[in-house]
Amino acid sequence: MLKKYLIAPGPTPVPEKVLLEMAKPVIHHRTSEFEAVFAEVADGLKKVFNTKQDVLMLAGSGTAAMEAAVINTLNPGDTVLVINAGKFGQRWRDICKTFDINVSTIDMDWGCSVKPAQVEEFLISYPETKAVLLQGSETSTTAYHPVEEIAKLIKPKDDTLFIVDGITSIGVHETKFDEWGIDIAVTGSQKAFMLPPGLSFICLSEKAWKFVEESTIPRYYLDLRKEKIAQAKATTAYTPTLSLINGLKVVLDMFFEEGLENVYIRHAVNGEATRAALQAHGFKLLAEAPSNAATGFYLPESIDGGKFVKFMREQIGVTYAGGQDHLKGKIMRISHLGYHDTFDTITGISALEMGLVKFGYDLELGKGVAAAQKILKDYIG
Amino acid sequence: MLKKYLIAPGPTPVPEKVLLEMAKPVIHHRTSEFEAVFAEVADGLKKVFNTKQDVLMLAGSGTAAMEAAVINTLNPGDTVLVINAGKFGQRWRDICKTFDINVSTIDMDWGCSVKPAQVEEFLISYPETKAVLLQGSETSTTAYHPVEEIAKLIKPKDDTLFIVDGITSIGVHETKFDEWGIDIAVTGSQKAFMLPPGLSFICLSEKAWKFVEESTIPRYYLDLRKEKIAQAKATTAYTPTLSLINGLKVVLDMFFEEGLENVYIRHAVNGEATRAALQAHGFKLLAEAPSNAATGFYLPESIDGGKFVKFMREQIGVTYAGGQDHLKGKIMRISHLGYHDTFDTITGISALEMGLVKFGYDLELGKGVAAAQKILKDYIG
Repeated sequence: MLKKYLIAPGPTPVPEKVLLEMAKPVIHHRTSEFEAVFAEVADGLKKVFNTKQDVLMLAGSGTAAMEAAVINTLNPGDTVLVINAGKFGQRWRDICKTFDINVSTIDMDWGCSVKPAQVEEFLISYPETKAVLLQGSETSTTAYHPVEEIAKLIKPKDDTLFIVDGITSIGVHETKFDEWGIDIAVTGSQKAFMLPPGLSFICLSEKAWKFVEESTIPRYYLDLRKEKIAQAKATTAYTPTLSLINGLKVVLDMFFEEGLENVYIRHAVNGEATRAALQAHGFKLLAEAPSNAATGFYLPESIDGGKFVKFMREQIGVTYAGGQDHLKGKIMRISHLGYHDTFDTITGISALEMGLVKFGYDLELGKGVAAAQKILKDYIG
Repeated sequence: MLKKYLIAPGPTPVPEKVLLEMAKPVIHHRTSEFEAVFAEVADGLKKVFNTKQDVLMLAGSGTAAMEAAVINTLNPGDTVLVINAGKFGQRWRDICKTFDINVSTIDMDWGCSVKPAQVEEFLISYPETKAVLLQGSETSTTAYHPVEEIAKLIKPKDDTLFIVDGITSIGVHETKFDEWGIDIAVTGSQKAFMLPPGLSFICLSEKAWKFVEESTIPRYYLDLRKEKIAQAKATTAYTPTLSLINGLKVVLDMFFEEGLENVYIRHAVNGEATRAALQAHGFKLLAEAPSNAATGFYLPESIDGGKFVKFMREQIGVTYAGGQDHLKGKIMRISHLGYHDTFDTITGISALEMGLVKFGYDLELGKGVAAAQKILKDYIG
C-alpha cells in the first residue's frame, strides 16, 4: 500500500466533502438554483478579498485571470513596472510584452523580495507608469512581497494601477483589497481555495474599472465588461465551471466555519514549523521574507533534486515540488497551502528526513520533526 | 420527492462513474502518473475527431476554443465568411469583429441550414476569403449544417480555412476531420463529452498550422503554439483542468466500449424518436435539417414558453431549454446529447405531454410517447 500525500504548492489536496459536492449531478446554470449558489459564492469571495467590489469568476486557470488583468486595463505603448523576482514575475512581463506594453522590470535575485522604496524611486523617476505588477507570493521562490506597503504607495496615484497576482497569497496571507488600495487582484482555484484547477478569480477597484473604459486591446473570452454585467445577475457571460463553483460553496463554508483569521494563522504556523525544521538541519531557506504558502530550501549539494523529488513521489508517496528554471535540481519546495494542517507538516518533514537518509545524506532523524513539533504543539488542541 | 432530469443541450448529465472518477483525490500534473492519463486521452480524442493531428485541450469553456481558433490563424483586415444561422453563428461573427477581421455573413433564418452552393458562390466571388466559419450543429436552432460538403469545397483551397464549431456536433454526428478536410474543429466538455463545463478541445489541420505561423494577433493564454509544444510532451502550457481530464479518460473508455458508431446511432435514434413524437402532436420543428444533438419545436401559441420551461423545471423536475433571442418564449429544445438514452427520451416526451395538459393545452396523452416507442423499440435490447 502506498498512501499518497500532496505537499506541492498547487494543485493542493481537495477536502473529501468538496470532492463529494462536485460529484453531485450537474444542474443547469441558467436556473434559480444555480444562481443562488453563484450569488452566495460571489458574496463569500468578497469577504476573502476584503472588498465591496465584485470578485469575478472566470473559466480558466490563474494565467487566464492574469491575462485578463492586463488586456482589460492597459494599452499597447503603455509603460508598466514588473517586479521580476521569479517565474511568475516573468509571466507578468511576458504577458505584457505579448500585448506591446513597454515593460520595465526591477529584477530581484530569486528568493529576494522587492523593497517598497525601490518601487517608490521608480515611480518618482517614471511617473507615467500605468501599472505596477507583482506577485503577492512568488510561488517559484516561496518569497512574500510587501503587498500592503506597495499598495499604499500607489493608492493616491490616479494614473497608476497596482496589479497583484495573489494566486498563492490570497487565502494564505490576509489581503485587504479595498483598505490597502489594491487595484487588481487575481487568484486561482487550486491553491488556498482547495479546489481542482480550472476556475480563477479577479477583482478590480473603481480606479481599475476606469482604466477598463480606456483600454483598447481586443478581447472576447476574457472581456471583463461582459462578465461584470453578467455576474451582477448571478450568471456568467459564457458557460461557467459548474462543478468547481458548487465545490467553491463548500470551500467558503469551510473558510468561514474555521474563521478566515484562523486560516491565515494555520498557514503561518505550518510555514513557521517547516522553516524551523529545515533550519534545525542547517538547510538554507530560499526566501528572505518567506511566504506562508510554501517553503523553498536548498538541498544538500550531494543530492540530485530532480531524482530526489521523483523518488519521494514514486517510492515514498509524498509529492513535493522541485525547483524551476535555474534552481531546477537544487531546491525543493514544501507546501502549506489549502487543506493542510499540523500532521501534513509532520509527514512532510519526517518523510524528507527519512528520504534524505535513504539517499545517503547523513542527518539526525527526528531533529527537524522535533523543531516543528515545538511550534505546532501550541497550535493544536 | 422531486427527481431531476436534465434534458437541455448542455450542460448535460454526467455519468456516475465519471463523477466518481473526478471525485478522486487530486494528483499533481507534473508527474508520470498524470502524463499517462493525458497521453491516453489525447490519443482517444484523435479517434473521436478522426484525425492524425493533435487535439489540444484548453482550460476554458467552448468560447475560449472558438476565440483560440480565430486569434491563432487570422489577422486584422482578413476577410472571412461566417454562416450566421443562429446565436452561435453570431458568436463567430462577434469574435472575428473583436479582432478587426472583416466579416461577411450568409444570414439564414433561424432553423435553416446553409446550402453548400451558397458557400461555393461566395468563394467564387471572394476568392481572397481567409476562412469560412460555421457551426456543425447550431445549438440555438437545433439545425445541422452540411459540414462534410462544405469541407470538401474548401479542402483544395490553400488560402482558405474551414473552421467548425463542433460544440454540439462532435460526438453526436460522426466528424471525419482529416478525410473531409476540416481545418479547425472545436468542442467543449459539457455536451456529448458528458463532463461538467470547463475543458475545451481544438484540432488544427496542417494547413491551419501554416496560418498560425502567419498570424500576428497577440495572444498569451490561448496561444496554441505553446500548447502544441507542451501537449506533445503530455502536459499543458498552464495548469490543466486535472479533474475534468481524469473524468475524460472514463468518458472516452465509455465511448469506445459502446463503439463510436453506436454513440452516433444512439443520438440519431433518440433524435428521430423525439421528432416523431412532436410531429405526432402536430408541433412544427424548428430545423429543416435537424441536428441529433437536440430538437427544437414551436410551442402552441397559447403557451408562454418562458413560464412553461420554468414550471417544468421547478415543479416537474425536468430541465429542457427554451428559445434564445427572438425565439424566447416561442420554442422549446429537447436534448439528446451525451449520457442520454431511450428512457430519457420517453421521460422527456411524456413529461412534455403531461405538462402541456396541466398548462391547459388540449392534447392526446401518450400519442407522442407511442410515436417515439415505435422507433425506439427497434433500438433497445
